[in-house]
Amino acid sequence: MTENKNIIASGSQRLEGRSRPKRKPQVQRNKDKLRLIPLGGLGEIGKNLTVFEYKEDIILVDCGLKFPDDAMFGIDIVLPDFNYILENQEKVKGVVITHGHEDHIGGLVYLLKKIDIPIYATKFTMGLIDKKLKEHGLLTKTTRIIVKPKDRIDIGGFNVEFIRVNHSIADAVGLCIKCAAATVVHTGDFKIDYHPIGGEIIDLQRFAKIGSQGVDLLMSDSTNVESAGFTPSESTVGPTLYNLFRGAKGRIIVTTFASNVHRLQQVIDAAVEYKRKVIICGRSMENVSEVAMDLGYLKVPVNVLVQLKDIKNYKDKELVIITTGSQGEPMAALGRMALGEHRHLTIKKEDMVIISASPVPGNEKMVSEVINKLVELGSDVIYGRFAEIHVSGHAKQEELKLMITLVKPKHFLPVHGESRMLMQHAELAVNVGMNKERTFIAENGNILEIDKRSVQIVGKTQAEPILVDGLGVGDIGNIVLNDRKRLSEDGLFIVVCTMHKGKAISGPDIISRGFVYVRESEELINNAREEVKKALISCEEKGIIDWNSIKNVIRESLFKYLYEKTQRKPMILPILMEV
Amino acid sequence: MTENKNIIASGSQRLEGRSRPKRKPQVQRNKDKLRLIPLGGLGEIGKNLTVFEYKEDIILVDCGLKFPDDAMFGIDIVLPDFNYILENQEKVKGVVITHGHEDHIGGLVYLLKKIDIPIYATKFTMGLIDKKLKEHGLLTKTTRIIVKPKDRIDIGGFNVEFIRVNHSIADAVGLCIKCAAATVVHTGDFKIDYHPIGGEIIDLQRFAKIGSQGVDLLMSDSTNVESAGFTPSESTVGPTLYNLFRGAKGRIIVTTFASNVHRLQQVIDAAVEYKRKVIICGRSMENVSEVAMDLGYLKVPVNVLVQLKDIKNYKDKELVIITTGSQGEPMAALGRMALGEHRHLTIKKEDMVIISASPVPGNEKMVSEVINKLVELGSDVIYGRFAEIHVSGHAKQEELKLMITLVKPKHFLPVHGESRMLMQHAELAVNVGMNKERTFIAENGNILEIDKRSVQIVGKTQAEPILVDGLGVGDIGNIVLNDRKRLSEDGLFIVVCTMHKGKAISGPDIISRGFVYVRESEELINNAREEVKKALISCEEKGIIDWNSIKNVIRESLFKYLYEKTQRKPMILPILMEV
Repeated sequence: MTENKNIIASGSQRLEGRSRPKRKPQVQRNKDKLRLIPLGGLGEIGKNLTVFEYKEDIILVDCGLKFPDDAMFGIDIVLPDFNYILENQEKVKGVVITHGHEDHIGGLVYLLKKIDIPIYATKFTMGLIDKKLKEHGLLTKTTRIIVKPKDRIDIGGFNVEFIRVNHSIADAVGLCIKCAAATVVHTGDFKIDYHPIGGEIIDLQRFAKIGSQGVDLLMSDSTNVESAGFTPSESTVGPTLYNLFRGAKGRIIVTTFASNVHRLQQVIDAAVEYKRKVIICGRSMENVSEVAMDLGYLKVPVNVLVQLKDIKNYKDKELVIITTGSQGEPMAALGRMALGEHRHLTIKKEDMVIISASPVPGNEKMVSEVINKLVELGSDVIYGRFAEIHVSGHAKQEELKLMITLVKPKHFLPVHGESRMLMQHAELAVNVGMNKERTFIAENGNILEIDKRSVQIVGKTQAEPILVDGLGVGDIGNIVLNDRKRLSEDGLFIVVCTMHKGKAISGPDIISRGFVYVRESEELINNAREEVKKALISCEEKGIIDWNSIKNVIRESLFKYLYEKTQRKPMILPILMEV
Repeated sequence: MTENKNIIASGSQRLEGRSRPKRKPQVQRNKDKLRLIPLGGLGEIGKNLTVFEYKEDIILVDCGLKFPDDAMFGIDIVLPDFNYILENQEKVKGVVITHGHEDHIGGLVYLLKKIDIPIYATKFTMGLIDKKLKEHGLLTKTTRIIVKPKDRIDIGGFNVEFIRVNHSIADAVGLCIKCAAATVVHTGDFKIDYHPIGGEIIDLQRFAKIGSQGVDLLMSDSTNVESAGFTPSESTVGPTLYNLFRGAKGRIIVTTFASNVHRLQQVIDAAVEYKRKVIICGRSMENVSEVAMDLGYLKVPVNVLVQLKDIKNYKDKELVIITTGSQGEPMAALGRMALGEHRHLTIKKEDMVIISASPVPGNEKMVSEVINKLVELGSDVIYGRFAEIHVSGHAKQEELKLMITLVKPKHFLPVHGESRMLMQHAELAVNVGMNKERTFIAENGNILEIDKRSVQIVGKTQAEPILVDGLGVGDIGNIVLNDRKRLSEDGLFIVVCTMHKGKAISGPDIISRGFVYVRESEELINNAREEVKKALISCEEKGIIDWNSIKNVIRESLFKYLYEKTQRKPMILPILMEV
């Protein structure tokens, strides 16, 4: 495929790739070009990971995870495919991290268990990474290099410059990655905040300067491309919080994303203003705030923080509780409060609960459920629809246009977004003057070759999602997931017979789970047993002695009987035991 | 509880009810009062059903179903609890239907299979009901009375007046229900549309007149109470459709709710204007449009409708396809097109797909997925964020205020909404002058007693959700659902041993499903088998011969081993067979 194809043609190339998920033979590499392979984050929100390869060197940008969707029964997390990296591991010189969100750092420990490479990240980002490394016993053996915005660092044949951006987490950076073949700007996740908490505005001058010197490819965040206008400043949340705090009669319970330390800072500032103590509640909230305070990103006056276990020593009017659970997770602290199952905290009518977050797509129902339960308990719940108590961390259309206009790249690759977002971001770029032929829609695994003259999608490598369930990484495939789905819908029906010389001598015994309430279905179970007996007799009469055939006869006759009686299709497992 | 309790007190009374789901002894009935029992639609969106009882007569308002949430594994639909109705069935004189949406008529056939009562509904509503009755063989034996707006009909000791309202379905009505004790106005689902398709504006004059004559209780739709302002007219969608149709180069595929015949009419009008033929696609779309055309609610010029099977006889520019699947359902027609699995229709790059609907809460992800897939296939997808191609059927805050102000009831009961919506609707009523003590938050099963002087919540009857799975109505309880949940998360691990005189003589055989990919886990399975053997030996050594105890030992040792190796917790089923 040449660069002359337009975005729709790229779209169809992608589908072709999808219909053949097996690895294709890799294309002969053009050694003089920069090779760029997104292994995650394209056609999806999450598990961001991009390979940059030039001659004998590879660097990685980010290494995130993704949370499973509803169809991934029992899966804990989803990782990007490390196959290309492992096959070329002798080349890998390091991984550069743009910021500390899970979809950018959550896959690191899984990668580092396989290859030992240095990590480059800013101070707060590294603080969050260190927590993870420690948990997995990797902290001492991993080389960690802390960088600052404006740093330019040589990693193998690459020079990487870190550029300050704003985002819903402290210390986020974009990247300018140079090698002899090309210059690539990667925005990371970003927004433009002229009044950020902490005071560090995105370095627009630097993006402009780099742009004026010539950028071959811009990779830009597509998360909010569906929203018109400009994302409001993080600092707009503060005044709303002050207003709410001023009117609160009892305790104030605030939930937000744990990693949003600028939000935490504003909540703490409001608490201090209204002479309230602050309790931090929930494991991830405790972890992040600890890192943020240690490193100076969260400033809390002495004697403001108190322990949850000491809650009884304070009057309700003296307390703010900052808690996890902003996504409606039933096991998080706020979820347990809503269910009346929290060990230390029972919701009261005078409580004000502030949901300072919006639901991540897919979590809407869970969040509603928690709000309903809190309302039922009598508390006053302040959430998105009624107050400006949350702003996004991602650039909207006007900011995205500004970025493209400042960097003025020769080629454009929208990243971090589902297909419709990537497509819309490409259109938006064309609307601000990008040449349509130089705008690319790629998918995970696509191999792009880049030099000063062109960008081309030259092939595809393996980039399937890797499912993690418990200790198993990648051992769960479609067969297991389909079984779980089926079991979840209509349950299970087991038939056991003991056989001797081809004849059933005991049983059939029947065990069912998740199918019907057994105590009320004795007749159904008894009749099913008779069906199995009839099936066994018919096998004997027909001289069917092969066990697989006998099992099939049992399965079919039971399926028919159970479906007729219940219109359900439980998984039927006939088990024959020889004695 | 007296009427002096405010809404927060009502809230807490409700919770008390929740913590004791078993039926309470019913309160001694005050025969001179109107008894009102909401059996569905309070604290939830869906399965609307209200009992009105006065002396020896009961009438029902609506009889809907609800779609299951994610935690209800394998459940098809959810019904309201009919128990109170069945216990008092000799009193029940009929069921009055406000409109033909599933959450108002979907439970009818299940109720009519138990008791034979007449149905009162408007013409189009009855047309949709008739389809269902026919399907279940109930059409000929059920008395069906077709009513018109402004009709006043005596049913037992009640007089019911039907009042025109606007909604996202034709022929919707609100009700004024009178008995000697009290007058109640029930809005049904409604919006205020000054330019409705079909021309019949909500009868605001009549609501005002009834209000001026004295209304003891208003029950009003809370679905959209979280939205400020005024819901736009259905007729605002037409011009957007015309604009889109004007620019379309290939086929136009429109999806919307099948029951929204006013939307269908506008799509068909646009098709006629731009000289396109119309194909109706998907079972519910075919059913509803057939009813709507038969009864004159949908007007289609001759030779405009063509059959899907004849699609090849027309050029792309000559076609509009109206299809089901607006909620992203993978099995609906649009879902199958998006997956490339539709029998007659393959998406092309030149297709324009218009999603003329918004996702019902909980369906957001499914809808996104379909949009992504359609975009990946190259089609141009027009959806909510970018164009005015859908309006809600429910009143927003300004309309709700108007309704309360016109009816000016003595007491107010918000209905049709989750807890937070009911609470907010009550607040909204207080803000437009309702006395807070006369505003009630009730829950399903609450028994309200009403007369000219007061409304009181006097007790509670059983109103648990009834789960329907296949042919089973109410036979699935928490045990079965919990089993399905567990099976869905980590699958199943079965161990079978044949026993003779307390000793294992064959096995243990192991079968697992949904746990690990067996071919790659031979070692795990073999070791698990050894664990079972060890457990059996330890039972023998300790003299444990009781089968339940042996099973427990097997289960515990396997649980420990499997969790240590995989951190998964499959359901473990030890099966012992005596020969």
